[in-house]
Amino acid sequence: MNIALIGFGKVSYNLFKLIDSPDINFSTSTEGRSQKTVDLINESNIEVFDSFREAVEKSDIVISAVTPSQALDVSRRYAQDFKGLYLDLNNVSPDTKSRINDVCENFVDGAVIGKIDSNNPTLFLSGINADKLLFLNDFLNVKIISGNVGDASKLKLLRSTYTKALSVLLIESYSLAQKLNLEDEFFDTLSLTEGDEFKDKSLSRISNTLNSSKRKAEELEEILNYFNDDDLKMIKTALEKLKQF
Amino acid sequence: MNIALIGFGKVSYNLFKLIDSPDINFSTSTEGRSQKTVDLINESNIEVFDSFREAVEKSDIVISAVTPSQALDVSRRYAQDFKGLYLDLNNVSPDTKSRINDVCENFVDGAVIGKIDSNNPTLFLSGINADKLLFLNDFLNVKIISGNVGDASKLKLLRSTYTKALSVLLIESYSLAQKLNLEDEFFDTLSLTEGDEFKDKSLSRISNTLNSSKRKAEELEEILNYFNDDDLKMIKTALEKLKQF
Repeated sequence: MNIALIGFGKVSYNLFKLIDSPDINFSTSTEGRSQKTVDLINESNIEVFDSFREAVEKSDIVISAVTPSQALDVSRRYAQDFKGLYLDLNNVSPDTKSRINDVCENFVDGAVIGKIDSNNPTLFLSGINADKLLFLNDFLNVKIISGNVGDASKLKLLRSTYTKALSVLLIESYSLAQKLNLEDEFFDTLSLTEGDEFKDKSLSRISNTLNSSKRKAEELEEILNYFNDDDLKMIKTALEKLKQF
Repeated sequence: MNIALIGFGKVSYNLFKLIDSPDINFSTSTEGRSQKTVDLINESNIEVFDSFREAVEKSDIVISAVTPSQALDVSRRYAQDFKGLYLDLNNVSPDTKSRINDVCENFVDGAVIGKIDSNNPTLFLSGINADKLLFLNDFLNVKIISGNVGDASKLKLLRSTYTKALSVLLIESYSLAQKLNLEDEFFDTLSLTEGDEFKDKSLSRISNTLNSSKRKAEELEEILNYFNDDDLKMIKTALEKLKQF
């Protein structure tokens, strides 16, 4: 089986490393890529074509993992006449997934959950063709959400509203604990009900959020615009705070 | 050792049941108690005095577990000439604990964490006399926070800001999931990072919060008044939502 990777950033690179089977041949292209990506491609033992068009023509499955703003263009360029499976893993809204679906013959909506560079990352898939990718379960954690294009990415957004707002709440409570000189005790007491890993997990969430607050604020703003729901007051407050970090 | 329990509600009743030792004799009084409490006292195998004064006079340790509004009055009535240890377990502010401390010779600030009627509840203690209660570790989970009166109750408030706001955030995200018909998937995807118990724990938090939203709003309002901190925007938003449930 031949799989073409459009884009060779963190997601593609980790999928290439994880899906390690003699039956699967990965290809990509250096066409229009940054020097950093070209270097990464050359260091990896992956088949390289001069153009993405060639890689796509010779593949059974195409995986698109580019920057969100390019996702729709990429599908228009490479998926229009493609008869195989087209899996879009980009962080785009369910509406954009739906527009990409309109371009493709056999589309699968996909979303990476958690860290792609962990040991066992999770892939949410949705759409009527999603079950054709169940073989990926041999290499990572695949969950088929539904037959509806957009549900996988919608669920990722939903999950993200909770985790991002939770991180902001953690920062707020932890800051208060610091003012009271009770920061260690704060974690100890919460571990009683939140589990032994609460402290490490929380400190990691706090520093991740503070280190990329601008990007997280942009993502959360897009999510709130997508859901367009006046009840999401906690999440809106989290966005306001994120913008000020 | 003799321990007098002032008040015989849920906290006292469960302590009496948990701290089961031939070396420890518990007493209380039916003085001024409701019929429900009198019945509970009569059903329990506890020594009963006609007045709390008598129970206190014959004890080495007094535990006060009454309604918050009575805590200071109770200490003025029974702790003034008492030479033993006086443990206050009432849900009152650190400032009130400090005023009770002024009345007592040997005060311990105490706070019940989590459910007192669980198998192994936790008691936070603070104050210079707290270590004299370490023997209670044989019966429940005792944590000494510091030598400062008020730290145990402050930590309970701090913990409470987080857990109450978290419950409101859960309700908000879960309501959104329901609107999208993705409520089961919402829990499944969060369990990946929040642990296997996430769903059960969250549903229990959601129903507890909705079932006692008025009381929880009052508690959270008092906590916010106590901390008086403009940065607590997530927690203030949680309070506004709690008031509307």
